[in-house]
Amino acid sequence: MSLSPVKHIVKTSHKSGLSFESGIDQYRFSMDTTSSESQGAGPSPKKLMLASLAGCTGIDVVSILHKMKVPFSDFHVDVEAELTDEHPQIYHQVNIIYRIKVAEDDQSKMERAVLLSKEKYCGVSAMFSHFAKLEFSIQFNQ
Amino acid sequence: MSLSPVKHIVKTSHKSGLSFESGIDQYRFSMDTTSSESQGAGPSPKKLMLASLAGCTGIDVVSILHKMKVPFSDFHVDVEAELTDEHPQIYHQVNIIYRIKVAEDDQSKMERAVLLSKEKYCGVSAMFSHFAKLEFSIQFNQ
Repeated sequence: MSLSPVKHIVKTSHKSGLSFESGIDQYRFSMDTTSSESQGAGPSPKKLMLASLAGCTGIDVVSILHKMKVPFSDFHVDVEAELTDEHPQIYHQVNIIYRIKVAEDDQSKMERAVLLSKEKYCGVSAMFSHFAKLEFSIQFNQ
Repeated sequence: MSLSPVKHIVKTSHKSGLSFESGIDQYRFSMDTTSSESQGAGPSPKKLMLASLAGCTGIDVVSILHKMKVPFSDFHVDVEAELTDEHPQIYHQVNIIYRIKVAEDDQSKMERAVLLSKEKYCGVSAMFSHFAKLEFSIQFNQ
């Protein structure tokens, strides 16, 4: 397997209580526990992985729809994930639900965009597929 | 394998360009592409996974040090990740570097806290271990 010359580096610092702040490029944001010790500084690290998954495939899909010149609106990506019961708890079943408004004639292009993200482009869903069963579905809205 | 009755749900919406906004519980934050089409709305979804890893194990370690009554300061978790060259690009080698100030007598307790996070508590590193080679190291600072 060949490696990319690019390395990703993220630096994270303990703040107070159980909260941490990460720096990703020029962006900073906080995370916190979901236990009773939370200070409400930010989301749970584990759930952040689900946002990462939605953002990765969402960016792919928008990018592909732009290239296909497909007009769309009200695009959302919902991620619903079930955890194992034993510890360490990992995501076992993950449903990715795309909700979008496109013309009926363009629905097959949206299906193609989701397939391309899943099979070719989205590194995050490729990583998830190593530990979870992923299901992709599309809800076409009016 | 038994599943937890808890389900994690994260909702993410397309904003403009290639940017998205996620809602995790009461928290909202944005993600964006790192390509030339970026509007600078937020970090890359993929790098967010590295913050998730740092936050997960960081929270474990602080929580364990608190239980062990180990005083510490200047605690940081750096994550350095190498990507595969082929697409979809995934993290292949991930180094987690803990940097902390603790009394010399407490260094073995810090080592124990990292080991417990790795082997028992941190679901995010358990998920990463399905697709990446993980290396853990501790740097004790004065």
